[in-house]
Amino acid sequence: MKAGIIGASGYTGAELLRILDGHPEVETAYVTAHTYAGKMVVDLYPHLHRYAETLFSTFDAREAIASAGIHFVALPHGESMQVVPQLLEGGAKVIDLSADYRLSHAGEYKQWYDLEHTSPHLLEDAVYGLPEMNGERIVDARLVAVPGCYPTAALLALAPPAKAGLVGIEGVVVDAKSGISGAGRSLSLAAHFAQADESVKPYNVGAHRHTPEMEEVLSSLAGEKTQVVFTPHLVPMSRGILATCYMRVGTEVDDAEIERIYGEYYAGCPFVILLGSGVFPETKAVSGSNYCHIGWNLDSQRRMLTVAAAIDNLVKGASGQAVQCMNLMQGWSEDAGLEAMGIFP
Amino acid sequence: MKAGIIGASGYTGAELLRILDGHPEVETAYVTAHTYAGKMVVDLYPHLHRYAETLFSTFDAREAIASAGIHFVALPHGESMQVVPQLLEGGAKVIDLSADYRLSHAGEYKQWYDLEHTSPHLLEDAVYGLPEMNGERIVDARLVAVPGCYPTAALLALAPPAKAGLVGIEGVVVDAKSGISGAGRSLSLAAHFAQADESVKPYNVGAHRHTPEMEEVLSSLAGEKTQVVFTPHLVPMSRGILATCYMRVGTEVDDAEIERIYGEYYAGCPFVILLGSGVFPETKAVSGSNYCHIGWNLDSQRRMLTVAAAIDNLVKGASGQAVQCMNLMQGWSEDAGLEAMGIFP
Amino acid sequence: MKAGIIGASGYTGAELLRILDGHPEVETAYVTAHTYAGKMVVDLYPHLHRYAETLFSTFDAREAIASAGIHFVALPHGESMQVVPQLLEGGAKVIDLSADYRLSHAGEYKQWYDLEHTSPHLLEDAVYGLPEMNGERIVDARLVAVPGCYPTAALLALAPPAKAGLVGIEGVVVDAKSGISGAGRSLSLAAHFAQADESVKPYNVGAHRHTPEMEEVLSSLAGEKTQVVFTPHLVPMSRGILATCYMRVGTEVDDAEIERIYGEYYAGCPFVILLGSGVFPETKAVSGSNYCHIGWNLDSQRRMLTVAAAIDNLVKGASGQAVQCMNLMQGWSEDAGLEAMGIFP
Amino acid sequence: MKAGIIGASGYTGAELLRILDGHPEVETAYVTAHTYAGKMVVDLYPHLHRYAETLFSTFDAREAIASAGIHFVALPHGESMQVVPQLLEGGAKVIDLSADYRLSHAGEYKQWYDLEHTSPHLLEDAVYGLPEMNGERIVDARLVAVPGCYPTAALLALAPPAKAGLVGIEGVVVDAKSGISGAGRSLSLAAHFAQADESVKPYNVGAHRHTPEMEEVLSSLAGEKTQVVFTPHLVPMSRGILATCYMRVGTEVDDAEIERIYGEYYAGCPFVILLGSGVFPETKAVSGSNYCHIGWNLDSQRRMLTVAAAIDNLVKGASGQAVQCMNLMQGWSEDAGLEAMGIFP
Repeated sequence: MKAGIIGASGYTGAELLRILDGHPEVETAYVTAHTYAGKMVVDLYPHLHRYAETLFSTFDAREAIASAGIHFVALPHGESMQVVPQLLEGGAKVIDLSADYRLSHAGEYKQWYDLEHTSPHLLEDAVYGLPEMNGERIVDARLVAVPGCYPTAALLALAPPAKAGLVGIEGVVVDAKSGISGAGRSLSLAAHFAQADESVKPYNVGAHRHTPEMEEVLSSLAGEKTQVVFTPHLVPMSRGILATCYMRVGTEVDDAEIERIYGEYYAGCPFVILLGSGVFPETKAVSGSNYCHIGWNLDSQRRMLTVAAAIDNLVKGASGQAVQCMNLMQGWSEDAGLEAMGIFP
Repeated sequence: MKAGIIGASGYTGAELLRILDGHPEVETAYVTAHTYAGKMVVDLYPHLHRYAETLFSTFDAREAIASAGIHFVALPHGESMQVVPQLLEGGAKVIDLSADYRLSHAGEYKQWYDLEHTSPHLLEDAVYGLPEMNGERIVDARLVAVPGCYPTAALLALAPPAKAGLVGIEGVVVDAKSGISGAGRSLSLAAHFAQADESVKPYNVGAHRHTPEMEEVLSSLAGEKTQVVFTPHLVPMSRGILATCYMRVGTEVDDAEIERIYGEYYAGCPFVILLGSGVFPETKAVSGSNYCHIGWNLDSQRRMLTVAAAIDNLVKGASGQAVQCMNLMQGWSEDAGLEAMGIFP
Repeated sequence: MKAGIIGASGYTGAELLRILDGHPEVETAYVTAHTYAGKMVVDLYPHLHRYAETLFSTFDAREAIASAGIHFVALPHGESMQVVPQLLEGGAKVIDLSADYRLSHAGEYKQWYDLEHTSPHLLEDAVYGLPEMNGERIVDARLVAVPGCYPTAALLALAPPAKAGLVGIEGVVVDAKSGISGAGRSLSLAAHFAQADESVKPYNVGAHRHTPEMEEVLSSLAGEKTQVVFTPHLVPMSRGILATCYMRVGTEVDDAEIERIYGEYYAGCPFVILLGSGVFPETKAVSGSNYCHIGWNLDSQRRMLTVAAAIDNLVKGASGQAVQCMNLMQGWSEDAGLEAMGIFP
Repeated sequence: MKAGIIGASGYTGAELLRILDGHPEVETAYVTAHTYAGKMVVDLYPHLHRYAETLFSTFDAREAIASAGIHFVALPHGESMQVVPQLLEGGAKVIDLSADYRLSHAGEYKQWYDLEHTSPHLLEDAVYGLPEMNGERIVDARLVAVPGCYPTAALLALAPPAKAGLVGIEGVVVDAKSGISGAGRSLSLAAHFAQADESVKPYNVGAHRHTPEMEEVLSSLAGEKTQVVFTPHLVPMSRGILATCYMRVGTEVDDAEIERIYGEYYAGCPFVILLGSGVFPETKAVSGSNYCHIGWNLDSQRRMLTVAAAIDNLVKGASGQAVQCMNLMQGWSEDAGLEAMGIFP
């Protein structure tokens, strides 16, 4: 099976190359990168020495379709929807890592991304690529929209109680801490070493674009409109997201029920490791891996359920999850190429 | 004026030495350290070269009282209450950085610290050393209990809305991120570089000893029992605490009121810098300083007020605040010796 | 094939478990850890979730020999030589990660480690486990002494010019920078986060125990006594060693010759990536991998050859190299289980 | 006394503002920044809250001369020489932090900076601003060229043995490790957090522009042409430079002589702390301060003297040293405004 990567010069593209190199069923057919077309992959990423002969090329839809059966699109939002329709028309399967096909409604896309959606008809076809929730739909999808890194962590923490009806009208607070690679390879003052090092800071408070994504999914799971108050923070590390989530719960909920809810929801899910009550995850334990660690605490006196989920933002939060979706779409083992455990310490 | 430091070998002790070195009114009379008695200060702390002639000594109450008029106690909880009564009986003023005199009730101390309080009669005399809230009482105190680092950050964020009655029966969520120096100089796996680096993790969820301190103060400000759900996290940096606080507010609250509430509460407070609505603090901007930066966001749709406060845990969260209290007790300028702005980047 | 790990609770033990989990030919038969006997592996290392059922046991030579054909010894120096002879007597193959069998002479061991060697007769049998240099001898070895992390980096940088006779009587300067995981999992002030973070410092200058190991190997390659001035430094990162090496060279040496010397020496070596003249390695590009990146600069005017090599201290500098040796000893592909490229960024 | 800062938006400009705020004799008259003219200082640097009313302005030589008696120029090289002559013609004193007036010969400037010097006649007047070496000349200077950060650390380590004739014809190896703030506030991939974090890498090997500066000064001290092989490295921390320097010495040199040489050279120098033989500096101990810590080791067997010096690159390596020069030029106490000890941990 041949796969192509469009927009391969960013961190999620590089991470796809790294993961696909170890995948038993896939070969990389082409890698494109607008700015770096003609450059060597190893000039940007010396760790990818097995791509020593690979050059970034310019995207051409016809060539792409001719050379690969599945396409990973790792372009920024707004650019992705310029190429996805062409690929689909050619009969290819597409896994899009951008935000362009994550939301169900073009209006909401417009509101949050300030762009007119140019292929709104595809929003209905696109399957939200969170395999732990949408596994069956992903199997049959021709277009998968891989979730954002923050929603992946938050939804893995929150899906079980949301589905169980524990998330009430008040909704949830998601306080997330992300490593700086989440800002991508593009230069910015926020990701400048001397500014970010030895500092923690919230950003885009009350206005982060991952909020509608979380609210849409949680509302759908809960069967009622669910509000998410989301505060992302930058912390001085390269990789990792920890999402600490707070839900007010009723007095009737107890530890045993929480454990049952999580256990049932994630039965058969190879990448979710439940640490259980009172044991909390650390991002380092999942670094470089596609695993998600989840732990929780029920404070009965204050009627608060606190759940924390840790992922590697570039793997389970992006490229690893994309490969996991591909595995499902192709009928391969869900963890093909993704078996590596975290690198620690 | 002569000051002594008891338990000076830890990070708060070293930070007191650093700050007092630049204080215009104070001279350090003695420094004690049980384990390191007889050792040079500079053997442990080469940055403190102006103490090149100073040795750690063993604590002796009589000598201490004879040689200094004010005493900083930087001992662990449980040990502090062994020396504070002796100092007070000798007529000295005491500023205690431990937890021993922070709570009002010996029963609560017993519950959270698992120790019988040996001088419960002093709990009433002890003044909680948060100058922005208790300034007038600190002026006349003979025993000041300096707040914990987490409560300092959280209470500076929450005191104005609590006093204004905005914190309802549901209470608040305090999601705090701390640098590793908060764990002190004592060795532990949690503070071992290779474990803590490149990782974020929650700890003591639902059970951190700073919870009762926050609840007691906020309840007193609000005039009603106020619950705090507190989750501390370790982040990979040496210094700094960011407390992100969430309160459900009524529909009648608007931006202008929030601004007025903060502005009025902190009028005349030299160490609180209000960044205002939509501007959020970063810990690096207060590093090495006694300043606290506060910013907030009111999400009217979700009726949530999010407030973040950043401090240096070893300065405003400990030794700097202790010196600020001394300045008030002695009638000196509140910021004597504490004028330094943050070290950035 | 069954393998056992003795002293598995440290970082090199954990790294062996991680690597062996992905090895196609090996199954882990037992893991011992004196202090943690009876504890779960995942209690110490939550990232190793596929060992969720594995307990640390106490070492018993008979049981060890009965259950596995190859044994990795990851004990501290001095303890290793207590178990290695028993294992060898039982006919097992042993790969020792300690310093106990690295030096050729018991007298030198005594001098540098201040211990009487208890099995000096084995020093002759032991093969120094640097496959790029000793590959053929490793194939037939029954006892392999895996090099220290610093010597691995330095010798990979220096072996080609040493063998080519470029390292003169003056010897070399090795200025090495190591991540803090090199200090192991044992707690110490030097590895305490708040002390090590945001700092660089030399340590054991002129007295580090890896010096004789480097001098012995380089002297053997050069065919004359070669001096190494070695300065290790701690830098604030978890993993990685960069060894920057300086050699005074003759006026007749030019760029083409340097390139030829390195190219010939490392022909057929799967884990050495030569970046070439003027391109320098960064430790992050080899993080989590068994690869070594080498780059150099010849300053003709100052007659100085500067060579830098980067490795992951826990992989190529310890556990990965141990597995590489096992692969050779077993006649497997040299890179079995070690194909992963670095994790970047 | 009024001082102005030209090019104040970079890190050295911000650091000047921080230091001058605490200086007893100086008031900041104006701050210019081409790109940020019209912006608030606190928009870029929230830690500088006492400049809350200060705006960056556009440089105007007449206004500058009218409003201040001393001018700090913190512009990039090439831009500095556009403004310095105008200021000098106006009779002002100038302290230049760029490279434009550090080298004695316009030809060498051209060679290393690839620019024609536009005021070569000033190179003779300019005094190299290393007070520990050039104190008396700085007192009478009207133009001081503050040394680069690397040369400051290396020359403080090397000046005493160079002057004592211990640095032979072979010269010295300077292996320097710098925090990332040395790259300035300008965005670059090398200073991008995710690239620089958890990594060490050499750069500009054999070609760094600070090499001629070191060679010129050392040759002058030694009285003969002295070669410097200089390798700068980036290490993942914000501040600090550690220069580890290697010199081949004769057999007649012993510990006592080394100690005497350093002791005599730095007698009366308030900012150099000699740690002595076998005690090595760490950058963290001087963080935020103008101090330099120096330690050494003489390996008699290998005839190698290893000396390490640690400074804060933005203070003693730039802005603090600039203020130290000003103090000498004005006849003030050399450490006015610079008394702060390092911030540790």
